[in-house]
Amino acid sequence: MILSRLGEFGIIQRIKNILETHSSDIKISIGDDAAVFQSHPGYWTVITTDVLVEGIHFDLSYTPLESLGWKLMAVNISDIAAMGAIPRTAVISLALPASWTGKQIDELSQGIAACSKQYNCDVIGGDTVRSQGTAFLAATVTGEVEPECCAKRSAAQTGDLICVTGVLGGAKTGLQILSTRPPRKRGQKAAEHFLTPRPRVQEARLLVKEVGINALIDISDGLSAEIHHICTSSNKGCIIKGDKIPVADGLKPLYPKEDKPLFFEALESGEEYELLFTISEDKYKILQQKKIFKSGFISVIGTIKDKSAGLHLVYNNKKISLPKRGWDHFKSK
Amino acid sequence: MILSRLGEFGIIQRIKNILETHSSDIKISIGDDAAVFQSHPGYWTVITTDVLVEGIHFDLSYTPLESLGWKLMAVNISDIAAMGAIPRTAVISLALPASWTGKQIDELSQGIAACSKQYNCDVIGGDTVRSQGTAFLAATVTGEVEPECCAKRSAAQTGDLICVTGVLGGAKTGLQILSTRPPRKRGQKAAEHFLTPRPRVQEARLLVKEVGINALIDISDGLSAEIHHICTSSNKGCIIKGDKIPVADGLKPLYPKEDKPLFFEALESGEEYELLFTISEDKYKILQQKKIFKSGFISVIGTIKDKSAGLHLVYNNKKISLPKRGWDHFKSK
Repeated sequence: MILSRLGEFGIIQRIKNILETHSSDIKISIGDDAAVFQSHPGYWTVITTDVLVEGIHFDLSYTPLESLGWKLMAVNISDIAAMGAIPRTAVISLALPASWTGKQIDELSQGIAACSKQYNCDVIGGDTVRSQGTAFLAATVTGEVEPECCAKRSAAQTGDLICVTGVLGGAKTGLQILSTRPPRKRGQKAAEHFLTPRPRVQEARLLVKEVGINALIDISDGLSAEIHHICTSSNKGCIIKGDKIPVADGLKPLYPKEDKPLFFEALESGEEYELLFTISEDKYKILQQKKIFKSGFISVIGTIKDKSAGLHLVYNNKKISLPKRGWDHFKSK
Repeated sequence: MILSRLGEFGIIQRIKNILETHSSDIKISIGDDAAVFQSHPGYWTVITTDVLVEGIHFDLSYTPLESLGWKLMAVNISDIAAMGAIPRTAVISLALPASWTGKQIDELSQGIAACSKQYNCDVIGGDTVRSQGTAFLAATVTGEVEPECCAKRSAAQTGDLICVTGVLGGAKTGLQILSTRPPRKRGQKAAEHFLTPRPRVQEARLLVKEVGINALIDISDGLSAEIHHICTSSNKGCIIKGDKIPVADGLKPLYPKEDKPLFFEALESGEEYELLFTISEDKYKILQQKKIFKSGFISVIGTIKDKSAGLHLVYNNKKISLPKRGWDHFKSK
């Protein structure tokens, strides 16, 4: 049945049937003018919103609706993680063409429900309206953080080590694999990384609670852009070591250019949803004792400098300005 | 300068320059991965989201952008009021065509800022992205309510009086005046009511705190539809007296049909953002002592009945099923 026949309340009922809430802190969920929940004493509330627009952020020709639903939740949860917070609730706004079917709503809802369950983030409300052309999806996610654990991007200190979790470039590889026609057979792991990112909630909580870090941000715009965000808002400079940037396995066969080191692809790859953080040398010693570090999951890629030092990238005995994004903007010096 | 030249961060900077936050509870505002605020002990958090889509919910040919910004905030604040809660924070997502100008962003932001200031609801974050065609605006607003004041639509009791605030039909009149070409000269008050609705936050707070009511909802879908929402979720029936429905002055000259009583226009007029509530006879006596009642601002339009009684409308010695919405769906019996 298409949405124009299901009607707004029919659509909401279908979504409601798939989504379940779990926390006893939820006092009123989907179905009233607003949802109501109880905050935990001693915590601050964290709130973030992200929009996905058809044709700009996603292409339904290669994006399963279940993945899209997952991603809508995940990109917001990643922002909650980037504050050092625990995800709690979500509200979701959907503006959909009337030609969508009930089955499509179900698939989208199943992806939303799966991510909601995985990260204990209850969907408690939303708005469902008609769009004339393309689909527009927005989610707002709330979380909670202890005041002393709240991690700002502006907290980098001179001398801090700059670290990233995981490997980078997988999302870019995934997008390329998915958008190539006919689809490539290799690279399914990268495609999955692009379609269903796994926000680093547990890892961020460990960093803010058990280690103690300074600045924290998630990599949604690309490593290079995020380093700029941290340095600008912290009023600092930096040196990044190109050969220390952890590169995803799948990148090499896709970008075998000899004149451009592979890490440049990792530097500009957005939608990675790994964590970028800065940490003092003292706290770094604590980090080295943790299992998360020993597994090789964390890489030190550079150092925070005074603002006057500027933002630089060193590799192959060269030192260049750290690009804001992308190889095309690079200028050697 | 058009948005494609301003860029995402240029746009955010313009919006930020116009919006100010006021509350000391805001710990982190626009500019980090997420915003952070402190909840008040003893309150529950209320959250709601609403989307406005160009071509569906608004038409820029007769909607000034400042009004649109106001309305985006107001429709969400009205949902917060409908829970008996106090508005606190907002996050706003904008998907805009790249052809919009910086001046347009400023006008939209000025409307958002005016409503934010009027209702003490700080805008603390958002997302700004490109849309391929029409504009999509979504806001999520949070509020706070004492657990004992939280007002659900499902709380109507048999025997409750059914009341509304203000007069109804003004929004419908306003829309008709605005969308008629050439524009009508009369009816500017109705047009303003449609463009810049005033959510009943203070009035709702008085009702939940100082009077004590049962069910509460705001009139966004039209009175008739909202009565259905209350009765369905409360598992009740009702009798509505047509001649008691308070009708906006501007309606009569626009709808002079002799065969259709004017209150039908008021019954089906959406986007009114008045309050509809049910109250016990005992609490009604308390309400009668209040200034808000004495001003004639509150009308009793009917009574809640057991579910078995159904939902009925009486007028001119006739008794008909209460329509779900609109005159066209009516069936006399």
